[in-house]
Amino acid sequence: MALEYSDLEKAINTLVTNFHAASADKGPSLKADEFKSLLSSQLPNLVKTGGSDAGFGEVLKQMGVKDGEGITFKNFWTLIQNLATSQYGLLSNEKVSKCSCLLL
Amino acid sequence: MALEYSDLEKAINTLVTNFHAASADKGPSLKADEFKSLLSSQLPNLVKTGGSDAGFGEVLKQMGVKDGEGITFKNFWTLIQNLATSQYGLLSNEKVSKCSCLLL
Repeated sequence: MALEYSDLEKAINTLVTNFHAASADKGPSLKADEFKSLLSSQLPNLVKTGGSDAGFGEVLKQMGVKDGEGITFKNFWTLIQNLATSQYGLLSNEKVSKCSCLLL
Repeated sequence: MALEYSDLEKAINTLVTNFHAASADKGPSLKADEFKSLLSSQLPNLVKTGGSDAGFGEVLKQMGVKDGEGITFKNFWTLIQNLATSQYGLLSNEKVSKCSCLLL
């Protein structure tokens, strides 16, 4: 019988496979264009670059990507961590009585 | 019209809300028992404690939880990061020709 996975396990899998699938050559890092596509297709609501190169550059900087370098899984994870932490902060700041325990 | 969320955005949401939902009092950290339930219900395949207290203690230690302290979102995130990083490693080590780009 195939293993059954929980929502949480599937969520981890989704994060990992999305990054992996975004690399055309399945190399250890994404090219800037590949990452830009990933952002616009997969994080349109949570990451706003305003569509500008400056906005995109700012996101890369926050992820610790240096000029001209590819985007590693570690860089990507920095972004996911920041998003998750800020979303958790939103939940935690809600009053308990109002807390719907849903974000999206 | 309601916003539509991508799989990746939903995955981040799943991680955050699972942790949040595991806390009965919606406080800033989980009690050991609450976290133990979360592990067994949501991470049965990825985290193996062998059902023993020693195994559970080892998981807590790897998450940076000190004896007697609650489990914060930051501790939880350390665990998720370790799981995601090792899963990404599994994907990356597959030969490209064999890569199915799926983990689960």
